[in-house]
Formats: sequence, structure tokens, C-alpha cells
Amino acid sequence: MRIILSGFGAVGQSLVGLLSSRAEDLYTEYALKPRIVGVFDSGGGAADPAGLDPAAITAAKRDAGTVSAGLPGGVEMIRSVDADVLVEATASNYADAEPGISHITTAMGRGMHVVSVNKGPLALAFPSLTEIAAYNNVALRFSGTVGGGTPILDYAKNSLRGERITSFAGILNGTTNYILSSMASGLSAGDALADARKRGYVEADESLDLDGIDAAAKLVILANWVMGMKVTLPDVGREGIRGVTGDDVAGAASRGRAVKLVASCKDGLKVGPEEVPLEDPLCVNGTLNAISFTSEHSGTQTIIGRGAGGTETASSILRDLLDVRQVMS
Amino acid sequence: MRIILSGFGAVGQSLVGLLSSRAEDLYTEYALKPRIVGVFDSGGGAADPAGLDPAAITAAKRDAGTVSAGLPGGVEMIRSVDADVLVEATASNYADAEPGISHITTAMGRGMHVVSVNKGPLALAFPSLTEIAAYNNVALRFSGTVGGGTPILDYAKNSLRGERITSFAGILNGTTNYILSSMASGLSAGDALADARKRGYVEADESLDLDGIDAAAKLVILANWVMGMKVTLPDVGREGIRGVTGDDVAGAASRGRAVKLVASCKDGLKVGPEEVPLEDPLCVNGTLNAISFTSEHSGTQTIIGRGAGGTETASSILRDLLDVRQVMS
Repeated sequence: MRIILSGFGAVGQSLVGLLSSRAEDLYTEYALKPRIVGVFDSGGGAADPAGLDPAAITAAKRDAGTVSAGLPGGVEMIRSVDADVLVEATASNYADAEPGISHITTAMGRGMHVVSVNKGPLALAFPSLTEIAAYNNVALRFSGTVGGGTPILDYAKNSLRGERITSFAGILNGTTNYILSSMASGLSAGDALADARKRGYVEADESLDLDGIDAAAKLVILANWVMGMKVTLPDVGREGIRGVTGDDVAGAASRGRAVKLVASCKDGLKVGPEEVPLEDPLCVNGTLNAISFTSEHSGTQTIIGRGAGGTETASSILRDLLDVRQVMS
Repeated sequence: MRIILSGFGAVGQSLVGLLSSRAEDLYTEYALKPRIVGVFDSGGGAADPAGLDPAAITAAKRDAGTVSAGLPGGVEMIRSVDADVLVEATASNYADAEPGISHITTAMGRGMHVVSVNKGPLALAFPSLTEIAAYNNVALRFSGTVGGGTPILDYAKNSLRGERITSFAGILNGTTNYILSSMASGLSAGDALADARKRGYVEADESLDLDGIDAAAKLVILANWVMGMKVTLPDVGREGIRGVTGDDVAGAASRGRAVKLVASCKDGLKVGPEEVPLEDPLCVNGTLNAISFTSEHSGTQTIIGRGAGGTETASSILRDLLDVRQVMS
């Protein structure tokens, strides 16, 4: 399987490491022989139809700050390098979804399958992207966009097959959950945010976390994939955690509850602070993510796991590559 | 799809209701057209190659206490009625797994696929049964044996494909969890048990719950299916909750923990009371079930849901029937 890897941050580097370390069992157990034939970051690209050396590109990134071997990256590389799959792992952009969306549509137009962990294109154009994928007869997978390594999308779609999910609610952003958990432990809103920043939990664009944009993007992806809705980011009623005070958190605690940033699909799509009973399985602390699906016959089921992390997200890309492998054979 | 239904208790009746109420969408969405061509309980059986009327067999059970129309049930029916699938839903028996295991092996010997919610045969003979299924080239499915309607087995096997699960620990018996939760709320062990009995949570053979046999059976099924082990019930180190005192529970609480009956696969297979930190997602209360899978790359993931119930378990049978449908086509 020939792969172009778009973006070489923590996730891309973890993926390359994972594919190397698992090379043997991926081949014997799944007949998967991944080859990175192209990789690029904002500095440029490197390509080799025989497969790039994982150690060499990782070293280049470390030493020179870019994988570039002087080749152009981005759409230009996707147009010129032959591959089976594009793994899109550049940063999410919720203004116009670029450059990810151009990477994805260019790849699909050339008949490549796409695995995206970039949420921007899916949040802004999910219905169109699935149509373009169908038109070009390619697979579009995005397990890593929701829940990191926790296979939330897969659970809802496959493990619950035959079942009808009627609603769901989730804590889908680990950063805000960490901040709210710290506030519940007595920190002021300001101190909790400062602590989260110090630990590197907060996105460079803080609004993505604090204003609920990241959670809303994941909600959009879930609503499209799990519920068959055709919605995009503007369809979500959204409020972040900036307005949550220490008094709110303390008041909730006195009622046996905790304030959480909840993304829900019930009567419409909504992200906002809500009080969740402490004994509700959804009420997880720290950077954990959790989601509760309510279905017609099986009651409410909750999945909890780490929602982020390079290795975890890379493991979800691997799952998607195994799906693509099946489609290809 | 022609189905013989073995056992017509809460689960069997829920299944018949579910298949009727969902008839239309099962056909249009999944091309599944289930037909109950035979059903039996301890009183005898009824059969009709054109398909039995769901309302009629349910009414017979209600009014006469048995579905019997004068036909023999059990192995005799399985030998004489032609069907594609046996749904085995008689009571679990951990002494010799009968009559379920004879139902299952007879059906497989005749080339029928098997969906079992009866845990006895799997707990006592999982490795043999999967070999017999392979030899006869039939599917053996048992989603409902662990977690009721919560697709725990499916999650571990399919949603985590490509991932390596290194260990797991679960609260797999709702009855004992209810009793321990009541004790944590201040009830004495005796009062908690009496309350659980009154609510109908305790099996007729109380030992199955209180001595951890039910939990151990589920652990065996998980270990075989998820970890590829070849084990049976005697391989589990097992201790129930009869020795847990109010002092144990109070002591745990003072340490921010709760006593839970934990079934674990780490260094060997074990069921026994353990102290679980209150903030651990595994630490669920009431009749809930929970299981945490720890994997190589995706960290620890927890699934929580109702572990029992007629409708819930029937929904898991439906999932298995959809799998069988795929194998058949």
C-alpha cells in the first residue's frame, strides 16, 4: 500500500514509528505492507516510489525542522506522486478547511483513498466530501477525528449494527474537561487555564478549545456518520467554557453534579456547559473523553478513553488503513 | 433465514417481539427475513416450516406456560426440523452445560449456524465448540453472553482491530455490583442481598452470582475470544462476594475506593473482590456492567452499559443474526 503522508507533526511521526515497529505482524496478520512514498510538511516534501526510510524522514524533521528534500509538498505532490492512500494530518482549520480540504479532494480526484485525522474539512464539508468519495469510488475514513485512539465512530456504526441510536451526548474535548475538573478541585478559572496551558493541553488557537469549536467539529462528524444527518459546523448551537465561574462549579458540586462541556445530539446539535450527575458514567475527569449512546433496544452505553495523543491517534489511522486494505482487495 | 429457537424465557420472547416489530426495516436495510420454524421450551415444541406466528407462540406461553403444540423439543426437534440457525437461549448450567451443549453440537453437526446466549457451553467447552464450528463450516456467535446488549465482545474484536489488547478488567455481574453498591450506601450485607432478591436480580441458583461463577463464565468467553486463549471455567481463580463485610466496604470508602467484584485477565484469569478507585471509569454503580481494555497503542478504554435484560440481550442476538446473514450470502 503506497501512502502519501500530509503533515508530519506528532501524529504523522507516531504513525511512521507505529508502521515500522508493527511491520512484521501487519504483513503476516493483515497482509498490509505500508510504504510511505511521499511525505510533506509546511517546509516541503520528500518522495520515493520505493518507499521512504522512516528513520531518515524522522531524523530530517528533528534536525532540519522539515522533512523537505527540496520537493514541493501539498497539492502539487499529491498531483504528481502515485499512491493508493492519502493520510491527511495537517492542522485543523475551521475558517476554510485549507489546506486539508484541497489535499483531500485532489487525492480523491486522482482515485486515492483518504484517511483524515484533520477535522476541519469534515466539520465544514462532510456531506460534500462523502459525495465526492462516492463519485470517485474511493474510501474516506476518519476514525482519529473523534476520540483519538478510542474507536467511538466505529463502535456506534459497527458494534451497534442493527440497533437504532436515538440520541447521544459526549465530553469530546479533553482540554476543557481538564480545566473544568481542575476548577472542581478548587482552582480558579484563571489558574486552571494557566495550568492546562503549562501542560501543553491548550491548542495554539485557544478558541478551538475554550469556545467549544473542537467539540462542535467532532459533534458534526458524529452526527453525519452515526445519525446520517447532513450537517456542518454552523448547524451546531455552541457555547464554550469562558463563562463558567467557580461559583457555577461549586454550586453544581453541592447538587452532586459537575459542570461539563457537553456535545449533544438530541433535539438538534448543541455544545455547551451542562451539569452532569457525578454518578453518570459520562462524568469523567481530567483529559478523558466520554460519550453515551442511547439506543432503541440496548439502553445507554458509554465509552471512555483518552481522546488525543500522537500514538493513540496513529493507532486509529492504522485501523482505517486496514479498512482501506480490505476495500482494495 | 429459518431459525430454531431453543428456550422461550424473557430473552426468547423479547427476540420474537423484536424480530416482529423490526420485520420491515430488517428486510429493507439488511435483507434479513427471519422465520421461526421451530421453538421449544421444557414443556415441548412447536414447528412450522412456513414460520410460526409470533403472536400465537407468545400467547401459548402466556396462557399454557409452554409453547408446546405436542411436538418433542430439544435435540429431537433440532434433528428433525430443517433450519439455518439455532438460537440457543436455555438456562446456563455450569455442571455439564446441558441441555445447551447438546443443542449446539447437534445443530452444528447438521450444518446450522448457532447463536448462543447460553453461557454454560461456552464457559465449559469454548475451545472444543469453536473447533466443531470450524469443522462443520458454520458460524458460532455469542454476543449476548457478555454485557447483554452492550457489544463488549464485538468492540474488543472489531472496533480495536489492528490493536493489541494486553489486559482487561471488568465488572461483569450486575447483581453482585448492585449488592456491593447498596453496601457502599450503608446497607448491611444481609439487607443488600435481601433487597436484590426482592427486585428479582438474583439468579434462582444464588451461587452463580454470589460465588462469582457468572462473572467467571464471562471472563472465560472474553479470554478465548479476545485474547485467543484456550481456557475453560476451571482455569479461573475465583472468589465471590460472600466474604465481603460492611467493614471492608467502609474501609475502602475511607481510601476513596469501592469494593467491586472484578474479573480480570492480566497475569492469569481471576474473579474476586478488589478495591477500585472511585474516579476510575470502571467504578460503576448499581446493576451496570463495565469493562476496561488496555491496549498497546490506544491506552485504556472503558465501556459501560446494562449487562442484562431481555430486550437488550435480544438486540445482541439480532446483531449475531446479521453476522450469520452475511456469512450465508
